[in-house]
Amino acid sequence: MKLSTRNRLPGTVVGVEKGDVVAKVTVRVGDNHVVSLISRESAEEMELEAGKEVMALVKATDVMLMTEDGLA
Amino acid sequence: MKLSTRNRLPGTVVGVEKGDVVAKVTVRVGDNHVVSLISRESAEEMELEAGKEVMALVKATDVMLMTEDGLA
Amino acid sequence: MKLSTRNRLPGTVVGVEKGDVVAKVTVRVGDNHVVSLISRESAEEMELEAGKEVMALVKATDVMLMTEDGLA
Amino acid sequence: MKLSTRNRLPGTVVGVEKGDVVAKVTVRVGDNHVVSLISRESAEEMELEAGKEVMALVKATDVMLMTEDGLA
Amino acid sequence: MKLSTRNRLPGTVVGVEKGDVVAKVTVRVGDNHVVSLISRESAEEMELEAGKEVMALVKATDVMLMTEDGLA
Amino acid sequence: MKLSTRNRLPGTVVGVEKGDVVAKVTVRVGDNHVVSLISRESAEEMELEAGKEVMALVKATDVMLMTEDGLA
Repeated sequence: MKLSTRNRLPGTVVGVEKGDVVAKVTVRVGDNHVVSLISRESAEEMELEAGKEVMALVKATDVMLMTEDGLA
Repeated sequence: MKLSTRNRLPGTVVGVEKGDVVAKVTVRVGDNHVVSLISRESAEEMELEAGKEVMALVKATDVMLMTEDGLA
Repeated sequence: MKLSTRNRLPGTVVGVEKGDVVAKVTVRVGDNHVVSLISRESAEEMELEAGKEVMALVKATDVMLMTEDGLA
Repeated sequence: MKLSTRNRLPGTVVGVEKGDVVAKVTVRVGDNHVVSLISRESAEEMELEAGKEVMALVKATDVMLMTEDGLA
Repeated sequence: MKLSTRNRLPGTVVGVEKGDVVAKVTVRVGDNHVVSLISRESAEEMELEAGKEVMALVKATDVMLMTEDGLA
Repeated sequence: MKLSTRNRLPGTVVGVEKGDVVAKVTVRVGDNHVVSLISRESAEEMELEAGKEVMALVKATDVMLMTEDGLA
């Protein structure tokens, strides 16, 4: 399987909050947390729950960059 | 400054490839690489170059999740 | 702070509607209204409510254009 | 014609910069400028050029919000 | 009316599931089903319901590609 | 492999146009054409070329809906 999506961050689910149509899934990736809003249906079909290993995928056009004053 | 964007991944620019209108910026975030496609204009205004510290920002609705056979 | 996001529209919150996971925030920008769907968590952390001044941010790749018959 | 896209900002094209595959179109909307990255093909089919009236469309899920220190 | 959005898939609504803020609309496009998450407000204004003919619109930057082992 | 992305449209590549940083890939899906803008790097790694079978993937939050006057 090859995917055009450039960014693939391996992590572990640490929380799933199910709304009526949308679910919020929090994933620990290294030292960071990544939050994903997906359909509730997807969360259930994928049997997402704390402890499950997942890959967070993000298209390159969806990544913004910020620099802060005082940073290198 | 408070931002609605949930995902903020601190990293270091490792490469900038400038096209005519779009630039591809590669950022090292922990053990991963994150690729961003932004306008060339942004890349120049932000003076992005290898070694510069940046924050990669991603909206929660732009994060997909994948599970693989054999994982957890 | 410098941001790769090209579009920054200053406005005033005129309404916040909180769902279980997602919140809908309406912002007046000049003569227009801009609607944003963000996580409920973000809306609460940012203490968004009518009257609050905010900046609406949109990536250039997320702007579509339409022309209508009869227009210039 | 009805469209699910919530945000429709009427404006006037002030600049078009054509790259090989992507075009950058700048639109004046009230007191703001809105930048759009679309395919070069779209820009040509729509005959976009300075002075043309357009509608900039943005999905509600693509609008982020920022508050700044010192603002209301 | 001309639209920069490249992808326009004609189809028929086969289901609408309304959450508090977001609605999930399922559309049959040829042999496939396409699922759309839009604001509940949009779904109501457009009077979306099973049997209604719609056009599903997707920006070219929002289409990812995958190839699978064993294919072509 | 399970993916949160709801929309998976099987098709055949009918054209690839490579820019300096971005590539435009056109895919025939049933009676429709789907255009994808991805990084040139992805297009090359995936060895995309006319005749190759691919799956076009689109997140549910990236699908807009339009109804037209005169349609059912």
